[in-house]
Amino acid sequence: MKRSERLVDMTKYLMGQPHVLIPLPFFAKRYGAAKSSISEDLTILKHTLASRQDGILETVAGAAGGVRYIPFWGKKHAEEFLTDLSSRLEDSNRILAGGFIYLSDILGNPNDLRKLGKLIATRYAYSNINVVMTIETKGISLAQAVAYYLNVPFVIARKRSKVTEGATVSVNYISSSIDRVSKMELPTRALKKDSNVLLVDDYMMAGGTLTGMQKLAKEFDSNIAGICVLCEADFDHVKLLDNYLSLIKISKIDTAKKIILARPGSFIAHTDFDRF
Amino acid sequence: MKRSERLVDMTKYLMGQPHVLIPLPFFAKRYGAAKSSISEDLTILKHTLASRQDGILETVAGAAGGVRYIPFWGKKHAEEFLTDLSSRLEDSNRILAGGFIYLSDILGNPNDLRKLGKLIATRYAYSNINVVMTIETKGISLAQAVAYYLNVPFVIARKRSKVTEGATVSVNYISSSIDRVSKMELPTRALKKDSNVLLVDDYMMAGGTLTGMQKLAKEFDSNIAGICVLCEADFDHVKLLDNYLSLIKISKIDTAKKIILARPGSFIAHTDFDRF
Repeated sequence: MKRSERLVDMTKYLMGQPHVLIPLPFFAKRYGAAKSSISEDLTILKHTLASRQDGILETVAGAAGGVRYIPFWGKKHAEEFLTDLSSRLEDSNRILAGGFIYLSDILGNPNDLRKLGKLIATRYAYSNINVVMTIETKGISLAQAVAYYLNVPFVIARKRSKVTEGATVSVNYISSSIDRVSKMELPTRALKKDSNVLLVDDYMMAGGTLTGMQKLAKEFDSNIAGICVLCEADFDHVKLLDNYLSLIKISKIDTAKKIILARPGSFIAHTDFDRF
Repeated sequence: MKRSERLVDMTKYLMGQPHVLIPLPFFAKRYGAAKSSISEDLTILKHTLASRQDGILETVAGAAGGVRYIPFWGKKHAEEFLTDLSSRLEDSNRILAGGFIYLSDILGNPNDLRKLGKLIATRYAYSNINVVMTIETKGISLAQAVAYYLNVPFVIARKRSKVTEGATVSVNYISSSIDRVSKMELPTRALKKDSNVLLVDDYMMAGGTLTGMQKLAKEFDSNIAGICVLCEADFDHVKLLDNYLSLIKISKIDTAKKIILARPGSFIAHTDFDRF
């Protein structure tokens, strides 16, 4: 197989298996090519990804070595996307009762989800996350998007008892948006002990739901490696936790005057983009 | 930019925008290359995808023309994946009360979801789908996976009244698994009139929930272009609809003897794979 064809196939193959270490002999065999040729191919690939600030190709030397594709976005891409997203969120038609914002169009749009997933996966690319956790319903698509790029499973805490998932572990939490004690649960088989968990959610007010997810993860003897939300309501709410990042801060929702103010949140300042 | 670098970037770019027509001048400008060189690049790309039976590159001639990447899987890949999936589903630990099967590991696994999404998107690649619809909770990840490869939005019908999504349209339906009348709803702004809808869900017993989604889509003056489920319970249930495809048929669940029998469903026989 010619170099040109190898490069197409190799690019596609690696994109489809982010974070997985592929031994060079695998490619050598797949293409009937010398390992030296494969190494040259990978140099081209690495350089091309870096020049667009869109992906890192990591080479691991030695007998157990190989190559690994890390989805990773440059700071410029991140800033552009979050600035654009902020301005789209400032549409007053998005205002919902109770200090909420309509986000379902964004959370159901593959192009936005790919960008959101890549962005959050950039921040946690080197955090050894082995599972992404969220709570039904609106956080699910964000969790899936991130899990795609980190290439780890995602689990969904449920708010109601379901007879259809077997044995569960549950915790109580205070949902600040409805100001009452609720229950969330996870099937016992869903999360392995000693997992390193990334929590994501679509919208955070005081953070009661995230606090509940922290408690739930603790019941599985697991560690919270990071907490990241799409939007943080940055008004009127005393936060119940401080170890989270937000992509977007909503600083004002004025239902009467139909005004929403949104701007990029704490995410960019707390992300190390200098890895290319 | 050299051909080798162009091919890497072009592959990545096209994979990230399935089904979108990209005019050749876009690439010519992006790489500072002649249109004839870009055409040669695309021939290499097309040939490489076809040789792996993993993707179609469509060229559209003329002034409004360009190139379009269609995620499309060969029949051999489909058969291999569904045979493997069937045997994984026959694990008796998956048996849940009420004729259900534990699927959350598969529906939370990026590698399975990528394959499921690509497979279903192959069947409907030329059906002019413009939105994928499902119902919370377990169908969501499947809908998102399919929507990624068709590159269209997905919408999620909700089972409970939520104050947080604005005005909604609702219908009643009979959920066969719990044998009572339930309500499902969708925000009025979630689905455009005259949409061409693909319904997907994780598990079908009699099909009451899918019938409800059909009714709901009709309330939005929309057309159902296809119905596809991951698993169909092929026992004890008189079906309420017949215009659906299933990836997997579950022909038996014996709780006492701890036996599940699963095999590929109607999907493959009703899919035209001969488009390479």
